Amino acid sequence: MLVVMDKNATREMVEKICHEIEKAGLKAHPMPGALRTAIGVTGNKQQIDADHILALEGVKEIIHVTKPFKLVSREFYPEDSVIDVNGIAVGGKNLVTMAGPCAVESRDQCMIIAERVAKSGARIFRGGAYKPRTSPYSFQGLEEEGLKILAEVREKFGLAIITEAIDTEVLDLVSHYTDIVQIGARNMQNYSLLKKAGRQQKPVLLKRGMAATLEEFLMAAEYVMNEGNHQVILCERGVRTFADHTRNTLDLSSVPYVKRTSHLPIIVDPSHGTGIVHKVLPLSRAAIAVGADGLLIEVHHDPANALSDGPQSLTPDNFDGLMKEIRAIASVLGRTCE
Amino acid sequence: MLVVMDKNATREMVEKICHEIEKAGLKAHPMPGALRTAIGVTGNKQQIDADHILALEGVKEIIHVTKPFKLVSREFYPEDSVIDVNGIAVGGKNLVTMAGPCAVESRDQCMIIAERVAKSGARIFRGGAYKPRTSPYSFQGLEEEGLKILAEVREKFGLAIITEAIDTEVLDLVSHYTDIVQIGARNMQNYSLLKKAGRQQKPVLLKRGMAATLEEFLMAAEYVMNEGNHQVILCERGVRTFADHTRNTLDLSSVPYVKRTSHLPIIVDPSHGTGIVHKVLPLSRAAIAVGADGLLIEVHHDPANALSDGPQSLTPDNFDGLMKEIRAIASVLGRTCE
Amino acid sequence: MLVVMDKNATREMVEKICHEIEKAGLKAHPMPGALRTAIGVTGNKQQIDADHILALEGVKEIIHVTKPFKLVSREFYPEDSVIDVNGIAVGGKNLVTMAGPCAVESRDQCMIIAERVAKSGARIFRGGAYKPRTSPYSFQGLEEEGLKILAEVREKFGLAIITEAIDTEVLDLVSHYTDIVQIGARNMQNYSLLKKAGRQQKPVLLKRGMAATLEEFLMAAEYVMNEGNHQVILCERGVRTFADHTRNTLDLSSVPYVKRTSHLPIIVDPSHGTGIVHKVLPLSRAAIAVGADGLLIEVHHDPANALSDGPQSLTPDNFDGLMKEIRAIASVLGRTCE
Amino acid sequence: MLVVMDKNATREMVEKICHEIEKAGLKAHPMPGALRTAIGVTGNKQQIDADHILALEGVKEIIHVTKPFKLVSREFYPEDSVIDVNGIAVGGKNLVTMAGPCAVESRDQCMIIAERVAKSGARIFRGGAYKPRTSPYSFQGLEEEGLKILAEVREKFGLAIITEAIDTEVLDLVSHYTDIVQIGARNMQNYSLLKKAGRQQKPVLLKRGMAATLEEFLMAAEYVMNEGNHQVILCERGVRTFADHTRNTLDLSSVPYVKRTSHLPIIVDPSHGTGIVHKVLPLSRAAIAVGADGLLIEVHHDPANALSDGPQSLTPDNFDGLMKEIRAIASVLGRTCE
Repeated sequence: MLVVMDKNATREMVEKICHEIEKAGLKAHPMPGALRTAIGVTGNKQQIDADHILALEGVKEIIHVTKPFKLVSREFYPEDSVIDVNGIAVGGKNLVTMAGPCAVESRDQCMIIAERVAKSGARIFRGGAYKPRTSPYSFQGLEEEGLKILAEVREKFGLAIITEAIDTEVLDLVSHYTDIVQIGARNMQNYSLLKKAGRQQKPVLLKRGMAATLEEFLMAAEYVMNEGNHQVILCERGVRTFADHTRNTLDLSSVPYVKRTSHLPIIVDPSHGTGIVHKVLPLSRAAIAVGADGLLIEVHHDPANALSDGPQSLTPDNFDGLMKEIRAIASVLGRTCE
Repeated sequence: MLVVMDKNATREMVEKICHEIEKAGLKAHPMPGALRTAIGVTGNKQQIDADHILALEGVKEIIHVTKPFKLVSREFYPEDSVIDVNGIAVGGKNLVTMAGPCAVESRDQCMIIAERVAKSGARIFRGGAYKPRTSPYSFQGLEEEGLKILAEVREKFGLAIITEAIDTEVLDLVSHYTDIVQIGARNMQNYSLLKKAGRQQKPVLLKRGMAATLEEFLMAAEYVMNEGNHQVILCERGVRTFADHTRNTLDLSSVPYVKRTSHLPIIVDPSHGTGIVHKVLPLSRAAIAVGADGLLIEVHHDPANALSDGPQSLTPDNFDGLMKEIRAIASVLGRTCE
Repeated sequence: MLVVMDKNATREMVEKICHEIEKAGLKAHPMPGALRTAIGVTGNKQQIDADHILALEGVKEIIHVTKPFKLVSREFYPEDSVIDVNGIAVGGKNLVTMAGPCAVESRDQCMIIAERVAKSGARIFRGGAYKPRTSPYSFQGLEEEGLKILAEVREKFGLAIITEAIDTEVLDLVSHYTDIVQIGARNMQNYSLLKKAGRQQKPVLLKRGMAATLEEFLMAAEYVMNEGNHQVILCERGVRTFADHTRNTLDLSSVPYVKRTSHLPIIVDPSHGTGIVHKVLPLSRAAIAVGADGLLIEVHHDPANALSDGPQSLTPDNFDGLMKEIRAIASVLGRTCE
Repeated sequence: MLVVMDKNATREMVEKICHEIEKAGLKAHPMPGALRTAIGVTGNKQQIDADHILALEGVKEIIHVTKPFKLVSREFYPEDSVIDVNGIAVGGKNLVTMAGPCAVESRDQCMIIAERVAKSGARIFRGGAYKPRTSPYSFQGLEEEGLKILAEVREKFGLAIITEAIDTEVLDLVSHYTDIVQIGARNMQNYSLLKKAGRQQKPVLLKRGMAATLEEFLMAAEYVMNEGNHQVILCERGVRTFADHTRNTLDLSSVPYVKRTSHLPIIVDPSHGTGIVHKVLPLSRAAIAVGADGLLIEVHHDPANALSDGPQSLTPDNFDGLMKEIRAIASVLGRTCE
């Protein structure tokens, strides 16, 4: 932490700040400069509230040097975390593809799609039983009936299951049926939901919020881990920008940043990230090339009749072709996709 | 709704689209153009899923003409809604100021601040009993003890109370104690919370999400109203942009937009919108000048020792000066602030 | 400047950095911390290239403490700069309104509008003789003929003139005819144009770029001033964000920020900032309330037949009403608008 | 074009709009709806000014259906454009890598780097002789001396040359020495420079502006092509967003969008797009995987002593490794990189 003083701050003000810092058990390093004085602070920052210092007389600005991460940080756990999802390793050398429809619409729909994506090499089946929709008048999901269909998919095709828990009320039920509990982008800072997800046992897939910095994204994962559940998989799915040619701007630079800063695995969801099918294939390839640990992809056998997000879904044939490309690119990076 | 066809779409494709549209009980207006055909759609759009049409062969794009708003829309309720908060009218000719500390820290703190802001002309007292914080290691609020302190403030100073419900678990408790239930920016698309807020009886103050378009903002209000609670007050508090000189970019143009599009009252929170005390005063004046129905302002008697958001708090003296400026500007617009 | 070292940086690396810093005539203040070492740097930063340090082994990050401003900075010139435009003071206690059509379309058009805005209290007449347009197929301006019409307006109505120089080729000609040379938002980082504007004698109005931080905005003014012309007026006109209800998001918080950081006057252009006439009036009031030194407003006597930007233009009657509101709000802030 | 009428527009207003449209030689298709009337417009839109219609009584909104592109559009030229740069084809099956230092610093520096990048497989040498810098106090380039060094690189290593023309003054000189004239991101809407680049004979590399939509980006290319020079190469280099972990957010979805919308080649500059060397390698791979026609990469033999942008430069060894990865990924897409 660096405390930058006003140009006109007096020596007394500087001394008062140093005193406050040392009172909190930290060390103050005043540095008088040509224009102003800055005070370096070293020690355990948890013990002091930056806002308290900022409000003192003569302080112009506080600059944070150490990031606020703890459990998510690679400085604390230097190895890559590998999450075990029902025997499938996420975050290791092998890439994992999660595929399926946006929403669970019917038993038949899920069986048809699951058979196809399993054959193409997907290991995890996705499908929303609860759907967060911008409009209260849109289809909101099959709820528990949908969760039962997903469980049947697991039985029948040996796929693991991922589905979203949209609120704390449904979390226990979702956790009971699923193999990975998904926290959606709109809930990335729903701290009650994060904490509750941290108190159940299933791995958590946490999507980046539409306007979340990577620091906020990692702090959201910290919320989950702080409750005891360290099995967190991150997911980049695009952020909101002025660019209007896609629904969101997929920020692939987040992958190398997260890999350096954190030990957690990160996958990419190019379906929500772009919203247009013609971009899903190229951006899926790019996600693998940039170093993601896997993909979360919407596949629908009949996009024209999908109840939600039809236009961004791949057909099973598209998905099969994509898997071949992904395997070829994975091998360039010394990885596999099995 | 306008369906834009591909340049190479055949007449058969166009006919198929028209057929689908009319099957749904709507009217199709095909318009062959120099370069491509577009199909206008009229009738009740609730009956058709745009994504279904978009997935049909030959369709290039869907353009929405009618906004999806219903209950929030001024087209449905042409008069300004005036919300009754314990006898205080929000949304009418008189501006309402809500003031108090960011967080309820102690009984003493609240009593000191409440006395001062009441004297300066605030009608509603704000203070967080539950605090959503980016870091799990930060102060999270006094919880029910805080709510009791707020209730005591109401008794003692005749101020109404506003405080945030951070999740569905605490909503009933918050609703029991408060006069206005606040839904925070991070929860603007927490649909479970919105619905539950729509099923209780107290007025709801809904803050704009950090990356929310105004259409999404109004649709979030629609969620609350659709459950039966029509007493919604909107609140602009800044959006996230590339600009780094303030924590958020206060988007004052939202006020005239909301006023034209919706009948709901809208107030401005310049404290969170800018994050720096030297900007709170000028932006408060600007908010009134642009036509807001009131302000939500953080006031702290001792900012240097506030447990959260200290640097953006006004002192009671600052607030008193601000109220005088606000009254003068209000009168320019033919409004009062009593 | 603060040099933050990697967690694993050795003592030798830290010493090497300190040596490089002192070699450049600066002072290094190493601060060993719990997790990593940081090195404070004091002295005249012009003498060292941060990128050079950043590339040295063991360096994680460089944090800039002192802003790069010099001539624009209030730390160097503590008083408000007041710019003299043909006898009209911009930046003092009196607010200045600049009004007129987006584009100079004809002699008649300008005379009709100028007569009206002068009567309502505008002191400076605006109008584009050269128009930067997104499409090469749009109307590009009357060029020198337009400049002559503007000069005639000055003669006839005693208004000063402001018009845009869109490139270095036309700058001399524009400077010859006008009283203020306008640099448009798209040219805010056209350094050749900025430098040339700094070498002519007329005051310069510099618009903020659509994606410019305030630091970049002030550095663009520094380019002009560094060539010898210190008569710079800044202009906030909105930035580009995800918000789609206005063409740009007017960032009124820039006004108090600029006022604290710089001595230069700043005005607001709510016409381009919002792009919709129903927002121009409220945001003009807000701009004055937030502390701007004036407004730049589009007024057209016949918006329906304007050749460019018609929909955002006020009629002369709208403008007359606006001037009355502005004067009333100005008086609340202890200012005048004469 | 679709004209959306106000809810309360009268039949007379609708008829007046239709009359105006047909007066301009277009066809009007009025569509009375449940809530409001919309009027479809077909024919050659160049003949009518949307703003003129928007200003008529009763009009609520204009929605543009046909994009304003002409020469850049794939609808007009359905085949991929392949640009011939001194015998090197850009935009065909073979990917082209442009590599070299950010700035030309000395003859020695360029010779050392050029030899290495040529050996690794670069075909085009990049290096700035004129540098646009945010601060007037930073190094601004070697100017013509730099251009001469670049010409010598071409002689000696058989590489083609790309360098930036920062303004209209230097354009002729740059065009004389170089093989590709680069237009920088800050100049993407410097229309005078675009037009002049369109009147010289060398191919133009046009970088996307920091806040440019793809429509604006393609319209900037239209400016160049409209002057007669159709040899335009587009370059994605990142846009400005709230995300603060990279200098810009590289928007790789622009590549498939441009490929569908336009016939022009598009390459990616991951050096400026991310600003951090550890991200350049992964994002370069991603750029090829997403379908770009090549890369523009900064390589420096001694990043620690580079005069500008050192921290984002790759060493020649890094570049050599990158070329191997790129070739492997290119083959997955059925492309080469020779």
